[in-house]
Amino acid sequence: MTSSRLDASVYGSRLARAAKAAGAADLAGLLITPGADLQYLLGSRANSFERLTCLVVPAHGEPAVVLPRLELAGLKPSAAGELGLDVHPWVDGVDPYELVASLLTTPAPTAVSDAMPALHALPLAVACGAPQVLASSVLQALRMRKDAAELDALRRAGAAIDRVHARMGEWLRPGRTEAQVGADIATAIVAEGHTAAEFIIVGSGPHGADPHHEVSERVINRGDVVVVDIGGPVQPGYFSDSTRTYCMGEPPTDVAAQFAVLQRAQQAGVDAVRPGATAAQIDAACRDVLAAEGLADAFVHRTGHGIGLSVHEEPYIVGGNGMELVEGMAFSIEPGIYFPGSWGARIEDIVLVTADGCEPVNVRPHELTVLPG
Amino acid sequence: MTSSRLDASVYGSRLARAAKAAGAADLAGLLITPGADLQYLLGSRANSFERLTCLVVPAHGEPAVVLPRLELAGLKPSAAGELGLDVHPWVDGVDPYELVASLLTTPAPTAVSDAMPALHALPLAVACGAPQVLASSVLQALRMRKDAAELDALRRAGAAIDRVHARMGEWLRPGRTEAQVGADIATAIVAEGHTAAEFIIVGSGPHGADPHHEVSERVINRGDVVVVDIGGPVQPGYFSDSTRTYCMGEPPTDVAAQFAVLQRAQQAGVDAVRPGATAAQIDAACRDVLAAEGLADAFVHRTGHGIGLSVHEEPYIVGGNGMELVEGMAFSIEPGIYFPGSWGARIEDIVLVTADGCEPVNVRPHELTVLPG
Repeated sequence: MTSSRLDASVYGSRLARAAKAAGAADLAGLLITPGADLQYLLGSRANSFERLTCLVVPAHGEPAVVLPRLELAGLKPSAAGELGLDVHPWVDGVDPYELVASLLTTPAPTAVSDAMPALHALPLAVACGAPQVLASSVLQALRMRKDAAELDALRRAGAAIDRVHARMGEWLRPGRTEAQVGADIATAIVAEGHTAAEFIIVGSGPHGADPHHEVSERVINRGDVVVVDIGGPVQPGYFSDSTRTYCMGEPPTDVAAQFAVLQRAQQAGVDAVRPGATAAQIDAACRDVLAAEGLADAFVHRTGHGIGLSVHEEPYIVGGNGMELVEGMAFSIEPGIYFPGSWGARIEDIVLVTADGCEPVNVRPHELTVLPG
Repeated sequence: MTSSRLDASVYGSRLARAAKAAGAADLAGLLITPGADLQYLLGSRANSFERLTCLVVPAHGEPAVVLPRLELAGLKPSAAGELGLDVHPWVDGVDPYELVASLLTTPAPTAVSDAMPALHALPLAVACGAPQVLASSVLQALRMRKDAAELDALRRAGAAIDRVHARMGEWLRPGRTEAQVGADIATAIVAEGHTAAEFIIVGSGPHGADPHHEVSERVINRGDVVVVDIGGPVQPGYFSDSTRTYCMGEPPTDVAAQFAVLQRAQQAGVDAVRPGATAAQIDAACRDVLAAEGLADAFVHRTGHGIGLSVHEEPYIVGGNGMELVEGMAFSIEPGIYFPGSWGARIEDIVLVTADGCEPVNVRPHELTVLPG
């Protein structure tokens, strides 16, 4: 079984780079509560909420962990022990915010993890007596560029979700509800190697026109076009995310024609990826194909999002984002066309930026897949 | 099937009380992102993360919702439509923080939901140009005191989790792993009326001595004492949370004796509850019984936590909390005794404060339940 975290040395290196980046940004340090940033920096899945757990990464000095004494056991699977981090357990009655502040040696601004709840961010601002910025301002550059172990995890995630799509005909049939199909997909997502089913969209008929539909009690009909957008994490925490569109029987000519345009649009996005291209250019590559066929207004969302320990992270593939792509980035390319009240379609692959293009981790056929109607 | 939210009029009344309380606290208003506060005020389960969804409740003026256009459909199950709230959808490229700020008419501090991620709290502080306080400072007084529909939901939740504990002998047997037992419990939690299995602790033998253990691959042995702490939400979102302790065969005399003290301690806590008593007094009532028998050091955590739309909320039943109990509050009474490396035990009921005492919603036997060893 693949381990729930990487070698401790990986986290040691990340902590050192994060501290250096914090220093370069004139910050006192990073304050990281449970979430993807804590997984990235320490391999910890801790998930306390109302009691503060906080990794303190001073720009100058040694990282340390502040956490409730009751949750000490939860720290064991992380790299904190192997790295010899100082651990400061606290009990009810102690002010954990003052404890964090005491571990920072300079009065400069701190960077707090984007996911930190206001419940902790506000009292930390008071205790540290300094403004806060988002930790993504420092960590995004590190987290966006995946190392070999991360790319491997994303490939495994892609293969796992492809295996689920390959089995779609077992569950997706006229007469069943979206929720019934979704429940079967959830089981398969775990059976095919994910640690959980994180999200499941089964958008049939008119529901396919809502990009953020999940599942419902709607019964799937013969002739329906069905958008299936699914994913979850694989060890050590990296996400899959892939969309394919199915048709319950042969599609009408106009649906087939419009879907063919969508397929060309998605391929145009993939073909445009290379180091030095901007996120906005990838978005435009997809959008231009649709616009040329009069489908500009049917594509109502951005083209994609970065992926890794978070399902959605930088880089966002959206108009106006001039960020240049670099080797090792991972993101979705997922244009869609939506016709409210009628039907919708989307095609989504995760791609990894290579030295001269990209490698899609999802390789299932991109066609509108016809299942028995 | 019980509805996923209450009548719209309930939310209208809560919004009015929240606005009034914000005005009384000299706040410009409340800014509420997805989470328990948004469920409380609007009956919305929206769960967007990186794109801002925010209920704006001005101290003076009409409440409104700012959300991504893509997530408009997700607002439909909420009370926003029936209440006629203004809805401000935004698309990529728009600054949603400025949009929120434009809906507040005074420059006073804002209250942000405790669960709001820094990702949104920091830019909202900038856009609103005013300090932030936690929304719990205003909402806690409202949310703590449950109305009739909320008390009913908590009773249903209690009965549902009691039905799961009643079936424990079906799954909890020597030779099975904690994880196997936990998986069966998860299925039963849903089968008995919850919408999800939120948390499952099966702490066998030495694992029972870690109050925050979840499940593991440890095989349960004959003679093990096993702590089972489980719960989840029932419609419209209120949580169950109940712990019982089991023994795989007859317990040794010393274990039975120490458990009997724990049982008296838990009952002492229940007996101490009445309007006007303080949270700290309930904590002390449990702790004193254990201390009198030399078990003070074995009880390493607070006595309890409030419960409702959040598993953990005010009032916290902990030493130093001088908050006076009032009718309609709901919280756990869950003393435990923990012997590291050896065994642990805990008894937990949720109680509702009545006019002259309290009503436990969990009524399963409190004894150390002996199952076949």
